[in-house]
Amino acid sequence: MHTPTERPDAPGAGTHDLRHHGDAEVRGRDLTDLAVNVRADTPPAWLKARIAASLGTLAAYPDGRPARAAVAARHGLPVERVLLTAGAAEAFVLIARALPACCPVVIHPQFTEPESALRAAGHEVRRVLLSAEDDFRLDPTAVPEDADLVVVGNPTNPTSVLHPAAVLEKLARPGRTLVVDEAFMDAVPGEREALCGRTDIPGLVVLRSLTKTWGLAGLRIGYVLAAPETIRALEEAQPLWPVSSPALAAAEACMEPRALTEAAAAAERIAVDRAHLVAGLREFTEVRVVEPAEGPFVLVRLEGAAEVRERLRALGFAARRGDTFPGLGPQWLRLAVRDRATTNRFLQAFDQALQTLPAVTR
Amino acid sequence: MHTPTERPDAPGAGTHDLRHHGDAEVRGRDLTDLAVNVRADTPPAWLKARIAASLGTLAAYPDGRPARAAVAARHGLPVERVLLTAGAAEAFVLIARALPACCPVVIHPQFTEPESALRAAGHEVRRVLLSAEDDFRLDPTAVPEDADLVVVGNPTNPTSVLHPAAVLEKLARPGRTLVVDEAFMDAVPGEREALCGRTDIPGLVVLRSLTKTWGLAGLRIGYVLAAPETIRALEEAQPLWPVSSPALAAAEACMEPRALTEAAAAAERIAVDRAHLVAGLREFTEVRVVEPAEGPFVLVRLEGAAEVRERLRALGFAARRGDTFPGLGPQWLRLAVRDRATTNRFLQAFDQALQTLPAVTR
Repeated sequence: MHTPTERPDAPGAGTHDLRHHGDAEVRGRDLTDLAVNVRADTPPAWLKARIAASLGTLAAYPDGRPARAAVAARHGLPVERVLLTAGAAEAFVLIARALPACCPVVIHPQFTEPESALRAAGHEVRRVLLSAEDDFRLDPTAVPEDADLVVVGNPTNPTSVLHPAAVLEKLARPGRTLVVDEAFMDAVPGEREALCGRTDIPGLVVLRSLTKTWGLAGLRIGYVLAAPETIRALEEAQPLWPVSSPALAAAEACMEPRALTEAAAAAERIAVDRAHLVAGLREFTEVRVVEPAEGPFVLVRLEGAAEVRERLRALGFAARRGDTFPGLGPQWLRLAVRDRATTNRFLQAFDQALQTLPAVTR
Repeated sequence: MHTPTERPDAPGAGTHDLRHHGDAEVRGRDLTDLAVNVRADTPPAWLKARIAASLGTLAAYPDGRPARAAVAARHGLPVERVLLTAGAAEAFVLIARALPACCPVVIHPQFTEPESALRAAGHEVRRVLLSAEDDFRLDPTAVPEDADLVVVGNPTNPTSVLHPAAVLEKLARPGRTLVVDEAFMDAVPGEREALCGRTDIPGLVVLRSLTKTWGLAGLRIGYVLAAPETIRALEEAQPLWPVSSPALAAAEACMEPRALTEAAAAAERIAVDRAHLVAGLREFTEVRVVEPAEGPFVLVRLEGAAEVRERLRALGFAARRGDTFPGLGPQWLRLAVRDRATTNRFLQAFDQALQTLPAVTR
């Protein structure tokens, strides 16, 4: 099993530990978790009940067809454009191994698994580093013309930047695979700037996750939306029965109107809770918040972030270090959006952690 | 999702549909299932309860370490020799993609996924076909000397032949990976002829499954035992968090002494039930049973098997066709071992199906 601590020698790690993930920051400690981007109090009871009900069918091999049909219907797409995967992590491995690419480019800072999977599959990966000075906005001309596979997150983990769909579209061209990781898109009210239902963009591959909004990180379920020939190529590289029956039951349940309504309400609530967190963070003159933040987390810059993070741990709060993301450094932290009460407690601890910093960094 | 009906064009299918599996033979029909090799009345209630209890942790990313340690302890091996996988199917894909091989050889008839995974990874695969005339016994000299990856099942699906460990050992040599699929070994009393705990055989890779004995086909859990450097290579090719939390909980539970005792008792019962099935089948002079059968299924040969299989379906029984296995043909059927009462009902139906066959084939 992969665990960050077991993988200091991950391929292509370079100066960044691409295999470091937020779950390592809370493991084995009773901390208030602002490190992992999974919605609190999830999965909801009704979803847990649906998953539990599926345990009655465990002796049978999984049949992915109903869940696949449900995902297709939710996005208004034919089933041939849908592939269910054991989480987005499996999708990245399939893309890296099964799609043709000579010159892959990953737009950073972003989730590190796509680059890690590409390197593990033997690719040389070029990085386009978006700049903090530009608030990590995407300039499509920064992507090399010869890139035949481009990976970008939207909204982006860890910057929380939501790129306009019109800008992302400019990255597409015939002969290029454009992978848009929309793992956090369902946390954006109205799924503004989503490309998931689009069939008119050449080479578009959209990844979606059920992990974050529905609290299913332990279940391994996500999906890919792409042209039928791309889906077929990815499917060929998948093991038989790649997704477990409980995960399929969850996927089907999460596509139902009731679930979509609940997700939409959660997105609205996250926006309000995020505004509260950002307003609180703005009060610290030594802290810079990357804005506008559009995901269920915010990225902040402050001198002495590593020390602050250690102090937050001592105070009972886990924040995600930023230095494992290419393009960031030790001054960065990622903070998950939590409810108002938790955020208030966090802001108090944050204040305390900052106050004891050496004067030189304040 | 892979489903047999969706994959008529599976890579390397040749004249055999390598992607046909027993689950397709019972899907959507209320048949007594002798097609799928999963033990009846599984998973047991205590195991279901353990899996259900794990649903409380779904929001967290899976942590495979306790299950890995439990598997290692059960086989008396260090954890570095263990890799948990999303079923044996994932293990075959990892082996095909991550281990060096120029000249892979698959010993048939056997489970078709290893060859399918090797072909999907771009390998040319040579087949060694064991012969019905030799009761599908393995002659190690039949394997080409230049084979640098050899795949063999023990006991073998679908022949139910248990190869002696001493014969399999003769296939091992420096520079060759020897993959022994022991997915059904825990159904053999005393796990006679198992190689799973051996560390003295160069290049040995053993696959184990929890699917069949424990009724967890829907959960996707299995494991690989091999030298640490082989495990590391396979792990590199795995996605992050490859096994779900419920599957990890199940793996851990199935390694406990109580589970091992229950599995051992099940193996003894299967042997008795199989003897009853074989004795019943022997009464049909037109049926040849491959003996000795040592797995939880038996392979039989009879003229008109395809027609008999159709008639059995009409009578409410699903048998596994044999013609999708390289080395077999339309005269072969695989029958799962069930309890005495089910077998008695089946034998009656079998008798009926045979009686209406055209006289020429009787």
